[in-house]
Amino acid sequence: MHFASRVDQLKPSDIREILKLTANPEVISFAGGVPDPVLFPLEEMKQITQLVLEEKGRIILQYNSTDGLLSLREKIALRMFKIGIKVSPENLIITSGAQQGLDFSARIFLGEGDAVACESPTYAGAISAFKICMPKFVEISTDSDGMILSELEAALQRDKKIKMIYVIPDFQNPTGKSWSIERRKELIRISHKYDIPIVEDNPYGEISFKEERMPTLKSLDSLGTVVYLGTFSKTFCPGLRVGWLIASNPIIKKYNIVKQGSDIHTNSLAQAEIDKYLELYNFDDHIKIINEVYKQRKNIMIDSIKKYFPADFLYTNPTGGLFIWIEMPEGYDSREVLKKALDRNVAFIPGESFYPSESIKNTFRLNFSNVSEARIDEGIKRLGEILKTN
Amino acid sequence: MHFASRVDQLKPSDIREILKLTANPEVISFAGGVPDPVLFPLEEMKQITQLVLEEKGRIILQYNSTDGLLSLREKIALRMFKIGIKVSPENLIITSGAQQGLDFSARIFLGEGDAVACESPTYAGAISAFKICMPKFVEISTDSDGMILSELEAALQRDKKIKMIYVIPDFQNPTGKSWSIERRKELIRISHKYDIPIVEDNPYGEISFKEERMPTLKSLDSLGTVVYLGTFSKTFCPGLRVGWLIASNPIIKKYNIVKQGSDIHTNSLAQAEIDKYLELYNFDDHIKIINEVYKQRKNIMIDSIKKYFPADFLYTNPTGGLFIWIEMPEGYDSREVLKKALDRNVAFIPGESFYPSESIKNTFRLNFSNVSEARIDEGIKRLGEILKTN
Repeated sequence: MHFASRVDQLKPSDIREILKLTANPEVISFAGGVPDPVLFPLEEMKQITQLVLEEKGRIILQYNSTDGLLSLREKIALRMFKIGIKVSPENLIITSGAQQGLDFSARIFLGEGDAVACESPTYAGAISAFKICMPKFVEISTDSDGMILSELEAALQRDKKIKMIYVIPDFQNPTGKSWSIERRKELIRISHKYDIPIVEDNPYGEISFKEERMPTLKSLDSLGTVVYLGTFSKTFCPGLRVGWLIASNPIIKKYNIVKQGSDIHTNSLAQAEIDKYLELYNFDDHIKIINEVYKQRKNIMIDSIKKYFPADFLYTNPTGGLFIWIEMPEGYDSREVLKKALDRNVAFIPGESFYPSESIKNTFRLNFSNVSEARIDEGIKRLGEILKTN
Repeated sequence: MHFASRVDQLKPSDIREILKLTANPEVISFAGGVPDPVLFPLEEMKQITQLVLEEKGRIILQYNSTDGLLSLREKIALRMFKIGIKVSPENLIITSGAQQGLDFSARIFLGEGDAVACESPTYAGAISAFKICMPKFVEISTDSDGMILSELEAALQRDKKIKMIYVIPDFQNPTGKSWSIERRKELIRISHKYDIPIVEDNPYGEISFKEERMPTLKSLDSLGTVVYLGTFSKTFCPGLRVGWLIASNPIIKKYNIVKQGSDIHTNSLAQAEIDKYLELYNFDDHIKIINEVYKQRKNIMIDSIKKYFPADFLYTNPTGGLFIWIEMPEGYDSREVLKKALDRNVAFIPGESFYPSESIKNTFRLNFSNVSEARIDEGIKRLGEILKTN
């Protein structure tokens, strides 16, 4: 059987394979990147689903428009306005999770032989989504303030095939890092100067452990070169697969056409459920509760790392999101560490999955959102024992 | 702003534009291709949704596996077995509607410069889904028994770039035609001989006005070259966006990888709802009711066509599905007819949308599933008056 070359080169995700090993409830898993289901508003979901089916069930269960339910798009646009993004509902479409926005972005911006510039390391699911378009990945180094933009600008001058910049400026996956305001402004300047679109992936921005939030790239973008991806997967329920995408006028039309051919529209019952939730409840109050829990877990993980990990290990101390990033001294191989960890029923994701080139071996990602506080301490303790005898 | 060439060439769907004009409830619309929402099992949906949320809400609202809920895949596999398709749940994945299966199929089989062979005319949404891979479309003529396979085989011998055969053998969209058993067997022979995959799109197979059903291509496929697409959109509720896809071993793995990067998984609450419905209710009884209603509407539309249309017009008389296909004498232009029809509050889809080359002007498609009996007669009467004075 003959497959197109774009598909021949795709490999199943390593992460998925590791996650299969964590199905055993005895495993303390820092591997996932998922919210704690205990925090899902289950009772509210029961109520709002009944209301939606009562009030307009037959309309909601019928085919609906590709861009999504207008009342939900209006409510999201209002939430966006509160964080400085002025968008009309016409420039906002509902996607089947932010992941779909990544898939569409690659198809819209990356032609044959083109390249995408991204943070090194970056979200593994974005690498998977982009790979089907066979781009060259131009990995740009990061420091504690975000992407090193002199390196990006040098790459743009050198390589005219870079057609998209992909970044996660808030509580990045996998590192937990957030960009400084200066870097954000500078990236916008570069995007405008070279007329290259930025895909701003922001699944974690609302999971903030501090009061003030950094401005999104989209809110700083006067020329409309930023495509913004948001999602309800981390703050509401990922199983519903509802995200959104904001883009300026010529661009949003392309997303709409691609979505039409791709799945016609996103599940409209899920859209109506979220719409009703936003109508009846204070979503920000719900997010505050989530953030309190995750902040506490993050603090415990940081304390445990300080207590149990070798002193020469580096770790990020994020102010939001779901992840802490570990940098071991040169010579360590995170895959070898994972093998020993799995023997002791602890799991994490080796850093290699987050580099398109897969060459850096001494990093790994820890998730703190979906592990109870007691298990965080116990799991980090076991990991520390392994790392100290490595 | 620079777009990839694959996206530059995409145009918004004509059909969507026509459907917007039919939003006015005074319009008698034969334009859509949608089920009648009155037939949706709304009360059952309320009940099963509560049950699902009660029984395993938090699991269902969490991220789930890319291939879909195992219990739903098992139930669909059992239904497939009853129509002669022996498939294990491992070879069946849940898709976000059958439309997503079309998008994935093009990406998996159609590389640069490749061609897809399809019926002429064919489903407009498939043309849209495939176009983003920029294939050449090899349109193969059809007669009342299906695709003319001598023409297909000649094309395959002439054009080695044909890498996928796309067909709708049951109650085709847009013509309503069904393939004879001989044609089905012959297409399988050709697919095996040339080792070219068939994508068998079967959204309408269950909407049958006769007791006996024709064997699907997949049930005749001993070598695993057929990819089968099914959906709950016509028989249950399209708003849920749940379909399925069956393929043999090396192929299904490719679909799984593409889906992972594309949307991670299909809304799992919708999957669980359908799973629960299949557990508690007799789905075939529900489908029987739908089919009785649609059969009656089809008969009325045929009677009205006989009564009101000019005698030299050709029409199909399908034994299932949602559509009747009209062939006017040469010289008629269905777009001109549509303009006059819209002036009299009647809508349909001109045939041009169903040919990748868009060159044939004297055909159009009529939908009978979502129009009441009285309005069918009135709408066809108005159309007949227009056609007779054309």
